[in-house]
Amino acid sequence: MAKWSKQLFIRLLCELIASLLVQFLGCSFGQGSSLAYAFSWGGLIIVGTMAFRIISGAHINPCISIASMILKNIKVLDGFLYMLMQLVGSAIGFLIAYVMFGSNTLFGANTNYCVTTVTVDPWWKALIIEFYLTGAWVLAFCSSWHESNQELNESVSLKIGLVVVGATLVGAQYSHTCMNPFRSLWPAIFSMNFDHIYIYVGMPIVAAILLPFAWLYIYLLGEEETAKGPGAEVKNEEE
Amino acid sequence: MAKWSKQLFIRLLCELIASLLVQFLGCSFGQGSSLAYAFSWGGLIIVGTMAFRIISGAHINPCISIASMILKNIKVLDGFLYMLMQLVGSAIGFLIAYVMFGSNTLFGANTNYCVTTVTVDPWWKALIIEFYLTGAWVLAFCSSWHESNQELNESVSLKIGLVVVGATLVGAQYSHTCMNPFRSLWPAIFSMNFDHIYIYVGMPIVAAILLPFAWLYIYLLGEEETAKGPGAEVKNEEE
Amino acid sequence: MAKWSKQLFIRLLCELIASLLVQFLGCSFGQGSSLAYAFSWGGLIIVGTMAFRIISGAHINPCISIASMILKNIKVLDGFLYMLMQLVGSAIGFLIAYVMFGSNTLFGANTNYCVTTVTVDPWWKALIIEFYLTGAWVLAFCSSWHESNQELNESVSLKIGLVVVGATLVGAQYSHTCMNPFRSLWPAIFSMNFDHIYIYVGMPIVAAILLPFAWLYIYLLGEEETAKGPGAEVKNEEE
Amino acid sequence: MAKWSKQLFIRLLCELIASLLVQFLGCSFGQGSSLAYAFSWGGLIIVGTMAFRIISGAHINPCISIASMILKNIKVLDGFLYMLMQLVGSAIGFLIAYVMFGSNTLFGANTNYCVTTVTVDPWWKALIIEFYLTGAWVLAFCSSWHESNQELNESVSLKIGLVVVGATLVGAQYSHTCMNPFRSLWPAIFSMNFDHIYIYVGMPIVAAILLPFAWLYIYLLGEEETAKGPGAEVKNEEE
Repeated sequence: MAKWSKQLFIRLLCELIASLLVQFLGCSFGQGSSLAYAFSWGGLIIVGTMAFRIISGAHINPCISIASMILKNIKVLDGFLYMLMQLVGSAIGFLIAYVMFGSNTLFGANTNYCVTTVTVDPWWKALIIEFYLTGAWVLAFCSSWHESNQELNESVSLKIGLVVVGATLVGAQYSHTCMNPFRSLWPAIFSMNFDHIYIYVGMPIVAAILLPFAWLYIYLLGEEETAKGPGAEVKNEEE
Repeated sequence: MAKWSKQLFIRLLCELIASLLVQFLGCSFGQGSSLAYAFSWGGLIIVGTMAFRIISGAHINPCISIASMILKNIKVLDGFLYMLMQLVGSAIGFLIAYVMFGSNTLFGANTNYCVTTVTVDPWWKALIIEFYLTGAWVLAFCSSWHESNQELNESVSLKIGLVVVGATLVGAQYSHTCMNPFRSLWPAIFSMNFDHIYIYVGMPIVAAILLPFAWLYIYLLGEEETAKGPGAEVKNEEE
Repeated sequence: MAKWSKQLFIRLLCELIASLLVQFLGCSFGQGSSLAYAFSWGGLIIVGTMAFRIISGAHINPCISIASMILKNIKVLDGFLYMLMQLVGSAIGFLIAYVMFGSNTLFGANTNYCVTTVTVDPWWKALIIEFYLTGAWVLAFCSSWHESNQELNESVSLKIGLVVVGATLVGAQYSHTCMNPFRSLWPAIFSMNFDHIYIYVGMPIVAAILLPFAWLYIYLLGEEETAKGPGAEVKNEEE
Repeated sequence: MAKWSKQLFIRLLCELIASLLVQFLGCSFGQGSSLAYAFSWGGLIIVGTMAFRIISGAHINPCISIASMILKNIKVLDGFLYMLMQLVGSAIGFLIAYVMFGSNTLFGANTNYCVTTVTVDPWWKALIIEFYLTGAWVLAFCSSWHESNQELNESVSLKIGLVVVGATLVGAQYSHTCMNPFRSLWPAIFSMNFDHIYIYVGMPIVAAILLPFAWLYIYLLGEEETAKGPGAEVKNEEE
């Protein structure tokens, strides 16, 4: 189990700040084409990954933390602490955006601000789309941790960012492309709009559990070639 | 001839999954500007290349497998197995998209769902456009296999992805930019719309045969400087 | 204190030229979607960073020079000289754009040419948005100077450029996304329109001061792992 | 003087093919937003640079060949042969596009097909814009040849491509962003529309001559730190 160290504290702080930044600015994006929407979220993921991958690995998304735990890139306890930080960070980030742009009086109107809604009929199609889109993000991360990429990961933030752009564009018409449970959870709670919330919370997590196992036991034949990711175990004192 | 090994099985599985993912999500993209269309397909190629290049080389497109065989980056039999997997993968991927978004009743309506159509007059202009666009993709891959790029291929997924974005934009108005025989084959079969299907199946293959020979015997003067691509021969036991 | 050397003179010249180029071409961008606006500024930052990072570090923005001084990537006096050059460069760049496209008679009409205006109500929301957007840019630069990125900084211009694209898109609807005091200062002076100018001049500087301290003392635990940036101290004779 | 060798022949062929490809597909791009226009040309420059930089350096543009000669990255005679190939290549490329999409009968109608026109008033403003935009491209190339980038030039095609995207967006409203004399020359000849052709032929060449001298004697203090570019002198037998 990870000792409560200063190093770990910094890494958790990084996850909190990164989640806050992405959720706040992402929800601040107003109205525009799906292309502008996609490049906003993609650009924010580039910033977050670039600034914090050195220190915490820049998971930002609980799905990535789950995948990291399965691939043993991060310790299980650390992973849960990361997810807690992401939960808190995205809550604060959403709150700032909500107070500023979402409503005139806090907790007043039900504006559906920044809520991801299912716009495809029937609803279960959004479920499949979310599974695949989150899967794409998770697979992109899995490959970035592979030992053949250990040395050369400088452009990883660019790649993840453009993957998010592409995935956001595909899902924009069906499910608003969540890919992150917390990104949809807070807007849903504040708007008291829980329609299909199980899709946005559930499917990304299912993808985040299934795909790393497939990666580890099918693609890598269980050989555990996972690189020690930046900011991960390497900096932990107990190793 | 390649032995039927576990390694080969994984590589074939990767091609199948990558083709399924790109075809499913690409066909799931609904309506939007040609720019959003281009970034969707480009982003998916980035995901596929990023996730699977380590293991199988991430051909995704049979044209790339043909070019790989000619450049001896992959064995001839493996190449044909790759193409078989791409055929099956894109069939499954298209089927999922078709059931979800293409029609209410399977095999019911003739909706031209995800079909690439020739919108330029006369039709043979689309043929020339497809030849050049596929040629651009094939040349980009040829250069990514060159030995001077053997060490530094981390951003190859980004480059291929943006090449697909640019090529898709150019062809969008004339031929919907196929560049991959299987990408057009399945939508044509399910819609029973075989207009100009020979353009989409034929021209990419012609480009995929001619350009690697030009690359090998003209540009490289027949010196076979082709790097052993990631996931290719290196992992084969008979070497 | 830095000697007035030929090396320093060249670095200062680079900052002047880079600021001139970005301000002139950025302000020359006419009308278009927020996406085209974002890619114009982002593309210019790529050019500037690519061309001048080798020699001067390509700060372009005084916020980056302030962050550099705090992280000891550059000497304090050099930093102030950099900022002076940026001020002069963006003045010249703006003047060229203004004479060409901003007015028929210089100093004649009050056209609000290239002015960043607050379009969100109330005004203090723009202040928060500018703080976070500038913060994203500053953090991206901080990470590019970290020693783990010392070897591999070739794609830094791409990453910074796409961060600017994403940030510009987010802020486009609220504050026109300044992120650089001088970028807004000169248009305001020439149009004699000083509405909310304290936001555009003040907040980026606040972000530029707070975030590097957080980076240094919180993230890096005060260990000064800052790499000697390209074109920075390394070339100074007194070291 | 360069011997007429097989190596040189291949390099010249590469320049011819690259210019043909970019001019043909660029002119084939039909109608669309300036953003789609910019990403089409940018994507084509990525393909061309990616595929041919290994062999010939992928100048594509005579301005780059002029800059290469001044920086001694390529021999003077080779540079002129490169330019001849670019002239022939873009002529063939334009001709294919013109026959296919520009007119029904060759040399028949004056359609202004693919012509770059000055849309800003007065005309000399386009001249200044073209100077700066071409200058940005030339400076980006100069930096890619600097010895500090000799090892790490894998993402150079991406960077040049996005620089072209940004520059094209800025100039789209004023001068259609030529940046390459031959790109505008052939459309002008075929349409017999020579309005302002001196801007498109002249200014890029002026920028291509002035900026490399500034780079060499001002930025680098005349120290000739230019790296031997890929495909350049290294492969020449007389060295």
